[in-house]
Amino acid sequence: MILVITPGIPNLPYVLKEGIKHFLLVAEPVTQQLLPGLYINGWGYNGYIPGPTIQVFQGDNVNIRVYNKLSEPTSVHWHGLDVPNVMDGVPEVEPSPRIDPNHYFDYQFKITNPPGSHMYHTHYHTAKQEMMGLGGTFIILDPPQKQSIIQRDYFMMLQEFAVIGMKKGTLSPGTYNLEPLSHDLNFFTINGRCFPYTIPLLVKKDENIRIRIGNLGMNAHPIHLHGHQFIVTATDGNSFLESNQYLKNTILVGAGETYDTQFYTNNPGIWPLHCHIPHHLSNNSTTNTGGMFTTVTYTEK
Amino acid sequence: MILVITPGIPNLPYVLKEGIKHFLLVAEPVTQQLLPGLYINGWGYNGYIPGPTIQVFQGDNVNIRVYNKLSEPTSVHWHGLDVPNVMDGVPEVEPSPRIDPNHYFDYQFKITNPPGSHMYHTHYHTAKQEMMGLGGTFIILDPPQKQSIIQRDYFMMLQEFAVIGMKKGTLSPGTYNLEPLSHDLNFFTINGRCFPYTIPLLVKKDENIRIRIGNLGMNAHPIHLHGHQFIVTATDGNSFLESNQYLKNTILVGAGETYDTQFYTNNPGIWPLHCHIPHHLSNNSTTNTGGMFTTVTYTEK
Amino acid sequence: MILVITPGIPNLPYVLKEGIKHFLLVAEPVTQQLLPGLYINGWGYNGYIPGPTIQVFQGDNVNIRVYNKLSEPTSVHWHGLDVPNVMDGVPEVEPSPRIDPNHYFDYQFKITNPPGSHMYHTHYHTAKQEMMGLGGTFIILDPPQKQSIIQRDYFMMLQEFAVIGMKKGTLSPGTYNLEPLSHDLNFFTINGRCFPYTIPLLVKKDENIRIRIGNLGMNAHPIHLHGHQFIVTATDGNSFLESNQYLKNTILVGAGETYDTQFYTNNPGIWPLHCHIPHHLSNNSTTNTGGMFTTVTYTEK
Repeated sequence: MILVITPGIPNLPYVLKEGIKHFLLVAEPVTQQLLPGLYINGWGYNGYIPGPTIQVFQGDNVNIRVYNKLSEPTSVHWHGLDVPNVMDGVPEVEPSPRIDPNHYFDYQFKITNPPGSHMYHTHYHTAKQEMMGLGGTFIILDPPQKQSIIQRDYFMMLQEFAVIGMKKGTLSPGTYNLEPLSHDLNFFTINGRCFPYTIPLLVKKDENIRIRIGNLGMNAHPIHLHGHQFIVTATDGNSFLESNQYLKNTILVGAGETYDTQFYTNNPGIWPLHCHIPHHLSNNSTTNTGGMFTTVTYTEK
Repeated sequence: MILVITPGIPNLPYVLKEGIKHFLLVAEPVTQQLLPGLYINGWGYNGYIPGPTIQVFQGDNVNIRVYNKLSEPTSVHWHGLDVPNVMDGVPEVEPSPRIDPNHYFDYQFKITNPPGSHMYHTHYHTAKQEMMGLGGTFIILDPPQKQSIIQRDYFMMLQEFAVIGMKKGTLSPGTYNLEPLSHDLNFFTINGRCFPYTIPLLVKKDENIRIRIGNLGMNAHPIHLHGHQFIVTATDGNSFLESNQYLKNTILVGAGETYDTQFYTNNPGIWPLHCHIPHHLSNNSTTNTGGMFTTVTYTEK
Repeated sequence: MILVITPGIPNLPYVLKEGIKHFLLVAEPVTQQLLPGLYINGWGYNGYIPGPTIQVFQGDNVNIRVYNKLSEPTSVHWHGLDVPNVMDGVPEVEPSPRIDPNHYFDYQFKITNPPGSHMYHTHYHTAKQEMMGLGGTFIILDPPQKQSIIQRDYFMMLQEFAVIGMKKGTLSPGTYNLEPLSHDLNFFTINGRCFPYTIPLLVKKDENIRIRIGNLGMNAHPIHLHGHQFIVTATDGNSFLESNQYLKNTILVGAGETYDTQFYTNNPGIWPLHCHIPHHLSNNSTTNTGGMFTTVTYTEK
């Protein structure tokens, strides 16, 4: 069995007690490094934007304690998971609690969805809190007894930020604030980093690679892979029938969507993998390649 | 047989005369209430934005009189329907008439498309008139003799507005004008209302629910359902082969697209159903949940 | 065998030498006429924005010399083609050369992908250079020996431009500069032209028409056809299994995506074919129909 790798982002550890996997997520201010020396004052979980990746199995019973160290209430929604209403995390309409500052709530549920790629994120003052960075990855792994053809399994979380205090067309080291309700998005991240600070996805020749993509930003991002075609195998945690899988090299991933893809490594090199919206390849409207761009890098020929 | 419900929007009545269903749409200024006490001066049909929902059967012969009470010419396009060119409603290029103020035109055609979800909207000075609100829903119903597993059938029309005269980040009761060519969209509606003024979609446990979604706005809206997975059954009025239906919990609906979905009510509660673009969950950039957000609400457990 | 027609844009000629098709693309400043008398100072290939259409067969060996007459370095990426890394055209990360001004590079590769619709574009200072216009169409044709049911085969390249120096809501003849990093897009083109200067796609009754759509802009454009339904047959150069083809009248084409469609001409007339985003039907926020709009025009009944 292989775990999913979210480059640059740790997996969330758990403690197994009486048949329940206990996780701890701390919602808190996070100073996230987007580029060497360039930081944003955002909000994340356990020191990361996006938060640590949660990985479980179908049938697991989980207790995810969310501790709120923010200056305002929050909640967590388990996006894509069919949980009971009281655990769904939308306090403004559901019988699911608002977590006040310095309080916590134990989200307890059984994983009933089949293996697939999901996300978690705030659902309190959502427009603001999501754009401050409060989201993460939630994977229901293939069962360990299942023979998988996959050698490496990656997740890419797409986010966008409106960073203020930096003149458009310039890039200066420093620590900057966000304006979460501004439409003027100027930094575009994969797993919390902008190119060239993104981490390459390493592969070897003759492997089956899975890349899972999730979007917690504003725009639908068309993610383009060079040198290969993706086989699209699942969306929103739901596998396609094998007869309905299809080939793409550019996958339009809307906010709140996930897509799972596979490809076979038969073309050695260093291959761009990026959002195809031109401005999303720029850091704050500068001309060098930046933003939502990484590479699939063969480590040997 | 069940009719489609567009919560908050009436169905358009008709008179059957000599085998033809006669409808009357009046294009006119409409003061639409987006939120309690907050109105926009828009343009709609028969007093509503979006206009009343038209529901017909395949094979019907219809005469839809469009009377223009606006201050400028208009037309109506039957979006998705394969009508004769003269009835298609694009006077700038087609042999289809421009309807001058205080004039009308009788759009006459036979419904040849199969059952499905379509829309109608202006196609004269389209960029302006659509963004003033001139659109509505057009359903070709399943035939009455067809046994349907569907217990409730809803339509959600997505629209967006650039409301002027209100300071960003504030909400004040009043009546406001639109700037239809402005890109600065600040109100996001489902069937002409913003949350919390949207009307919940009521369901009971153990029902098959159909939700149809249409978009007459600018952005592609990813519509996310909590607690359940959608079965996607049709798009643009065209059913998928049953073997090609697929599961989603977030459906990206582009402007001009429609999607039909089904789900089974096996998870009681009050479940958010909303656009997943963070800023579209806000009314005029305020922080409380607003905009393109409603709920699927179980009325009993 | 029929070639693909990109209305208003020539096909790129080649010289066959020793089994290799030799093409020449010149990257250079181009003054492109968007509307009668209204020009932009953009960048294109061989005098056109988008550049000439390249049409080859699977198995062809090609040598595409790219000569750089721009004032800064450039490169060309063969978007969607599985070429060797050194020929992929992303000098910032790949072992693929940067082409300095007044220099050239010979991109040499064998066409290994199956028949389908692809694109080519700059991949150096991509955010800027793509928004200056540096892109074009790349078709791998169906093999000549294959019996095709297609009578006419069209390509539509979608692009967007931020034209400066013209007051919003006005249109004046003249020659204008672009601001490639501006988000304030005001001109929306099909094959380098805005309506009413776009060129109709001519058809006759009882033909099978293929329309291929590619997007090298910023937004995902939902392309809507009146009076007919599209059969969607391929995406990103990859054909769907026939059992997975589906019907649409509005196809959301993200930046970097291509879609191939077919339809049968059974409904004579002049039929709009356009982006359904309201503002994209306007030239510089004026109210008459403009922008990303053309027609499918029957030349006889």
